Amino acid sequence: MDYALLLANFATTDAQPSWSQQRLLHECLRAAIRSGTLHAGCRLLATRQLAAELGMARNTILYAFEQLATEGFVVTDRRGTFVAHLNVAPPQRAGAGTLGHPGLSARAACALPPSDPATMSAFAPGVPSLDDFPIAIWRRLLDRAWRALAASQLNYGDPAGEPALRSAIADHLRAARGVLCEPSQVFITDGTQNALDLCSRSLADAGDVVWIENPGYRGALTAFRNAELRVVAIDVDEHGLAPSAADWRDHPPKLIYVTPSHQYPFGGVLSVCRRLALIEQAKAVGALIIEDDYDSEFRYDGPPLSAMQGLAPNAPVLYLGTFSKTMFPALRIGFMVVPPSLATPLAQYVARSAPRGRAADQLALAEFLRTGQFATHLRRMRRLYRQRRDALGAAVERHFGASATLCGSSAGIHLALVLGAEVPDARVSAAALEQGMIVNALSSHAIGPAQAARNGFVLGYAQVPASAMDASVRQLAALVQQYRQKAAPL
Amino acid sequence: MDYALLLANFATTDAQPSWSQQRLLHECLRAAIRSGTLHAGCRLLATRQLAAELGMARNTILYAFEQLATEGFVVTDRRGTFVAHLNVAPPQRAGAGTLGHPGLSARAACALPPSDPATMSAFAPGVPSLDDFPIAIWRRLLDRAWRALAASQLNYGDPAGEPALRSAIADHLRAARGVLCEPSQVFITDGTQNALDLCSRSLADAGDVVWIENPGYRGALTAFRNAELRVVAIDVDEHGLAPSAADWRDHPPKLIYVTPSHQYPFGGVLSVCRRLALIEQAKAVGALIIEDDYDSEFRYDGPPLSAMQGLAPNAPVLYLGTFSKTMFPALRIGFMVVPPSLATPLAQYVARSAPRGRAADQLALAEFLRTGQFATHLRRMRRLYRQRRDALGAAVERHFGASATLCGSSAGIHLALVLGAEVPDARVSAAALEQGMIVNALSSHAIGPAQAARNGFVLGYAQVPASAMDASVRQLAALVQQYRQKAAPL
Repeated sequence: MDYALLLANFATTDAQPSWSQQRLLHECLRAAIRSGTLHAGCRLLATRQLAAELGMARNTILYAFEQLATEGFVVTDRRGTFVAHLNVAPPQRAGAGTLGHPGLSARAACALPPSDPATMSAFAPGVPSLDDFPIAIWRRLLDRAWRALAASQLNYGDPAGEPALRSAIADHLRAARGVLCEPSQVFITDGTQNALDLCSRSLADAGDVVWIENPGYRGALTAFRNAELRVVAIDVDEHGLAPSAADWRDHPPKLIYVTPSHQYPFGGVLSVCRRLALIEQAKAVGALIIEDDYDSEFRYDGPPLSAMQGLAPNAPVLYLGTFSKTMFPALRIGFMVVPPSLATPLAQYVARSAPRGRAADQLALAEFLRTGQFATHLRRMRRLYRQRRDALGAAVERHFGASATLCGSSAGIHLALVLGAEVPDARVSAAALEQGMIVNALSSHAIGPAQAARNGFVLGYAQVPASAMDASVRQLAALVQQYRQKAAPL
Repeated sequence: MDYALLLANFATTDAQPSWSQQRLLHECLRAAIRSGTLHAGCRLLATRQLAAELGMARNTILYAFEQLATEGFVVTDRRGTFVAHLNVAPPQRAGAGTLGHPGLSARAACALPPSDPATMSAFAPGVPSLDDFPIAIWRRLLDRAWRALAASQLNYGDPAGEPALRSAIADHLRAARGVLCEPSQVFITDGTQNALDLCSRSLADAGDVVWIENPGYRGALTAFRNAELRVVAIDVDEHGLAPSAADWRDHPPKLIYVTPSHQYPFGGVLSVCRRLALIEQAKAVGALIIEDDYDSEFRYDGPPLSAMQGLAPNAPVLYLGTFSKTMFPALRIGFMVVPPSLATPLAQYVARSAPRGRAADQLALAEFLRTGQFATHLRRMRRLYRQRRDALGAAVERHFGASATLCGSSAGIHLALVLGAEVPDARVSAAALEQGMIVNALSSHAIGPAQAARNGFVLGYAQVPASAMDASVRQLAALVQQYRQKAAPL
């Protein structure tokens, strides 16, 4: 074996220029052993000789041999260093084999269509106006938080989140949403999907019943299916979730998912009668209500509706909120307000399962709330979104006339454009996507069997300038016209 | 009903000074309805009259009434506005009721002891030296990333992470760890626990068999139990995981969890024979190997051991890495390298289940890697940790002498101090915690039945200055002496 040649060949074909001599030698010998060039049982040159032959320091050789021995490629005894018997065929070139593992688990693959790839265009729902976020202020607060950070705050954080942020959120929720809570009940999450995931796994077992609004929010459905809960779809009417006596009797829930302040996607408000009844009955069957209050900071007519959580003391309600809509989605911060009795067990669960950190981000956000920047931003966005909503309403009136009904436009950052059953909304949605427009079909929000007379579109208007509204709605109306004709020619 | 008095009382007792008149009136009437002061069916004063009586604008009254109607507290018809029949008892004061919901689910409660609350002291494992992280450099890179950010980057991000970071990680892994991968195989995670969680749910179903090293890493056990996998503990010896033929035959795995480069907690290196055999046999039974390479950037003797992932093309290996140890835990960024065939399905799963963002953090980290700051930091830390390891070794020698064996000290940021079976390590660990010292008992890492002769402690030394090592070890030795005597008096 000409080691110098072996090394020279390897150096020109497989090595990286940055490698040390020691690294080069180690990689070279390893490759030669794996390819069979240095076969099992073959004795390597003594280190002193090899050092001389390669013009390397003996220590370099010794280190490389030691490394090979640690990895098990060679064995050393009194007689010298020998290539180990690896007992397996040398690896084949890429492409020759395939993965034996079947891929996604059944529970992960349980088919939901993939989400839309793009979310930056008319009328992607749930995305705020990113151009209007005061990024310079945020950057300053972040930089200040980083400057003030102690080294110890680079460590894992409190499983429920930074106390300063939890306290600022509790203050905000008490004042703005009528939520009854102490900071100890507030948990910081990575957003609503993360919170739903956490709740459905830590507060229910596989096979437990969860109620979901029908039509409803598909993100919640994803979390519940991933957690292998038994999903029971409960119909909503214009006042929100309307469970029947049979629902309570035949499939009593462990969890109840509701969007009471702005039902997704139709925007109805769950009436106070229904809220109180739901709370009483949930208590009776031992269910926990998950109140997803995803966008009710934006309300354009009258003061914000209070949250269900604060309606009755000891209500079995777990409240979810997010900064994805009030700040920006990439922030990845949301929160839950949990009943006091759940705070300790949930903190223990989170500590084991999903360790937290990101102290600087949380402290900057706490400052954003505490200094009133958050309230200022919300006020500005409320004005902006009201203009956009009005522009959307006017454009729909112009291009759809009496054939369309708008639902849920008094709050939030989307509305439902309800059309007749003769409009194939899913097909229009697909055609619109090809034109770069995201208009999710209302019919795709049916959980379980699709319901008649609920065709139409979810229109998120927060990122669409008022001046651009007319053109986008005209484009949509033209598509609807085209497909309506196709569906019923002459 | 004296509305002026009602309002005045409410304003002094329950209202917030910041409320507008409209908000005040709305809250006041709502409270009166809920308490029964305004009873069901009672007709409210006409808006014009009420405006006069309260000295408010009529629009203020109209808004408040509209709000109450939206919430369902009142109903309006031609005859006027009436308090609705709510059909439920008025809420009781806090403390009167209890939550019906049973609390944590069985799968969440499946008892693992809560993690240690503090992680900033000798000898908490897995925490790097936070005082030595170049926080000023990091802050500058972060600020630069924020300045360069487009508004569109405030939106949800690529489900697999920012391309620039994935590419920088792939480059680093190829050069430093011998990992064979394209950037498209790299997924950004929130850290190793998040990755384990994702893998155990998306790549295995409830009841599927996962192999775990025994003794082994309890974080992995938590993830597998949470996902309701069937955990089979496979004993490790000094060369790492050693499954028997019976193991392959009787409980063939779907997933195999290994820490081949620095077995946790004992620090053994899985030999190349075993690695190749494991890969071949995993392929044969359709298992996927999860290679957790949590700390092998820190290696003190010889170049780093290459990762198992790169040992054979098409190896069924999913590689996990983290920046918690090389950067800092609060960063909450780790990564997986997945087999090419899993990249697309996993991206779809993540897009639906755990939307991502944090573009600025990821781009700053990509720069940290790309500009060589990461390599520089690693080199500095390697020198520092080697000193600390040496100081720990010397102190153990001084205070324990021949009664102790050190394992796994050639790499990583912890080592295992193995003592005799007569040392009640769990009791010493509890006593040490009371003195502010974290020394996790080796016996607590047994998965399944505890094994004899594996008593001792996991000692994380990265955050302990060399000068403080002797005192801490002496303190530990004294505790061991005290409990050893207690266990066997006279």
